[in-house]
Amino acid sequence: MKILKTNAADDGFYMPAEFSPHSGCILIWPHRRDSWQNGGYAARRAFVELIKIISLSERVTVCARYEDYDEARRCLPDHVRVVEMSSDDSWARDVAPTFVTNGKEIRGIDWGFNAWGGLEDGLYFPWDKDNKMARKICDIMDTDCYDCRDFILEGGSIHTDGEGTLLTTEECLLSKGRNPHMTKEEIEHKLCSMLGVSKIIWLKRGIYNDETNGHIDNICAFTAPAEVVLAWTDDENDPQYEISKENLSILENSTDAKGRRITVHKLPQPSPVYVTENDCLGLDNMNGEPTRTAGERLAASYVNFYISNGHVIIPQFGDKNDEKAVEILQSLFPTRKAVGLKTENALLARDILIGGGNIHCITQQVIALNSDH
Amino acid sequence: MKILKTNAADDGFYMPAEFSPHSGCILIWPHRRDSWQNGGYAARRAFVELIKIISLSERVTVCARYEDYDEARRCLPDHVRVVEMSSDDSWARDVAPTFVTNGKEIRGIDWGFNAWGGLEDGLYFPWDKDNKMARKICDIMDTDCYDCRDFILEGGSIHTDGEGTLLTTEECLLSKGRNPHMTKEEIEHKLCSMLGVSKIIWLKRGIYNDETNGHIDNICAFTAPAEVVLAWTDDENDPQYEISKENLSILENSTDAKGRRITVHKLPQPSPVYVTENDCLGLDNMNGEPTRTAGERLAASYVNFYISNGHVIIPQFGDKNDEKAVEILQSLFPTRKAVGLKTENALLARDILIGGGNIHCITQQVIALNSDH
Repeated sequence: MKILKTNAADDGFYMPAEFSPHSGCILIWPHRRDSWQNGGYAARRAFVELIKIISLSERVTVCARYEDYDEARRCLPDHVRVVEMSSDDSWARDVAPTFVTNGKEIRGIDWGFNAWGGLEDGLYFPWDKDNKMARKICDIMDTDCYDCRDFILEGGSIHTDGEGTLLTTEECLLSKGRNPHMTKEEIEHKLCSMLGVSKIIWLKRGIYNDETNGHIDNICAFTAPAEVVLAWTDDENDPQYEISKENLSILENSTDAKGRRITVHKLPQPSPVYVTENDCLGLDNMNGEPTRTAGERLAASYVNFYISNGHVIIPQFGDKNDEKAVEILQSLFPTRKAVGLKTENALLARDILIGGGNIHCITQQVIALNSDH
Repeated sequence: MKILKTNAADDGFYMPAEFSPHSGCILIWPHRRDSWQNGGYAARRAFVELIKIISLSERVTVCARYEDYDEARRCLPDHVRVVEMSSDDSWARDVAPTFVTNGKEIRGIDWGFNAWGGLEDGLYFPWDKDNKMARKICDIMDTDCYDCRDFILEGGSIHTDGEGTLLTTEECLLSKGRNPHMTKEEIEHKLCSMLGVSKIIWLKRGIYNDETNGHIDNICAFTAPAEVVLAWTDDENDPQYEISKENLSILENSTDAKGRRITVHKLPQPSPVYVTENDCLGLDNMNGEPTRTAGERLAASYVNFYISNGHVIIPQFGDKNDEKAVEILQSLFPTRKAVGLKTENALLARDILIGGGNIHCITQQVIALNSDH
């Protein structure tokens, strides 16, 4: 593995859309007891069910700490690869590399990671194990790796259409805890030079109370070039209403890198999901302080789906909108099967949500060369 | 990765000779301060020099602990792969899988490992991280894995000719610290059923004072079918003399699996290498006790060479026999380049030997299918 100090775009590389072919998917086995309830067993089950679906059409690699390796290997299907790797938590979207390609070769980008805000408003300390994962994953995946650790970015804060357009939020990328020394223009320049995009559409804020400072991947996602889903509520009393309305207006008044207008599909939000007293009893403290408080609203959203080669896998909350979300996404991804992540006995999205994110946050696609797929 | 409970030989698999084509080689970054002198820096340099040579003709994967990953990555060439993996020490020969093939597929064998003798006369405690490495390596190498953890065996205690014959020592395989509940016949049966051999040649003892209970790979090795090198001394006052003479007699009176007589090439021993007071000052204690004592004889031997696709890489001790050993092995491996492991400024074998083994002990070949090579 070569560590590259150049800019990916200058080398002819770009980031394809998530709906382009993948050669694989990376996840991290959950373990933090202050992130995952009741020792993490429910989260494990959710991860395993998700991995089973993804692995129907993609090669899945799961990174497990030394302490967790045997259990991960035991719980996962044989055709899933488990590799030992240290981590602070389990958000592959944000700590695994962002893969880029020039059509002939795949490379990874190793962004700086500071637990969503570092000493300003980060969610845990330290985060060094997470920050070191991206290049280890590149080495295992046999790709060279761009060293971009001087720029703080999480994969969950960007979406691309693969045709020159990037979607992100100001709330996140202009947050004080990431790259406060850089202007918006400098951040734009960095994104363009590393991801091979030429147009950035800046939404304002992400999902209400999203502790990642409003990651794009919880509120808005490309479903095709010039086509997005946007998390939506018609309830004017919900603080989400203003946020979504503002973003809708931005999207409706934007064109993409190719000059196209954006078609926006509204994806209804589930009813608010709150942390309960019982949830709190199942979560360890972090440095003596609770990580959740009863009554806190969690950043639940159907937009946090993962697009695998064969499926679109969607969070389900036991909500009246669960089926509707699946239906809408099925109509938007006609060549894939849209599935809600649940079992006969359990709705699994909440078990992931309690950790602070959902399906998209715990996955990272490895893009395919055409010949791989 | 499938964990298999069957016998490899029943499945049509066998262990090829080390001089068969390899697809790669595995090593473990050195770290134990009670094994490797002066914080391990000299050992690192020796490992790096060795890896540079091996990687000229094989894909090298180095397993490094979380704590060592960054330094390993920094010190090693780009084309060498570094993967995070926990380990107790750095003897890939003994803890990495033994690879077997049926000509179409590669599989690994995960033997039980107990640090060369467990609670009887093992060299460190605990050894659980080492014992868990083999199947992790299989998962990374994309091979299924035979679970043979109920049988204690180190790769350094066996050599095969790839044509049905296995070489080992009674001192090691019949030692009390390994499989004391099994008879010699039961051990033979296990070796035949897992390695696809039909004839076992039992030498008596290994190199004098070899703390592995006399591993075969320090005293005798196949250089071709029906052809071996044997560590030799003409000094009748050296305790090694009787050991080598006894083994010579066994070899000269043996036939291999195909009924052939064995041609024995004597490989001269270096002059005895002793631990010095200065060596001891550079080694941490283990559980409060020194791991070496001044005046202790180390198990130096030229037989502990590694056969890569392109080279035969041989320990060098600054001894009058250094060049002779290289010459003999060059004549026996005419299609490979025989090289002594050293730099302009340093003889590197002693830096590895102080840890208790040498070049062969710290390497494990990954065999190639014909199409891989």
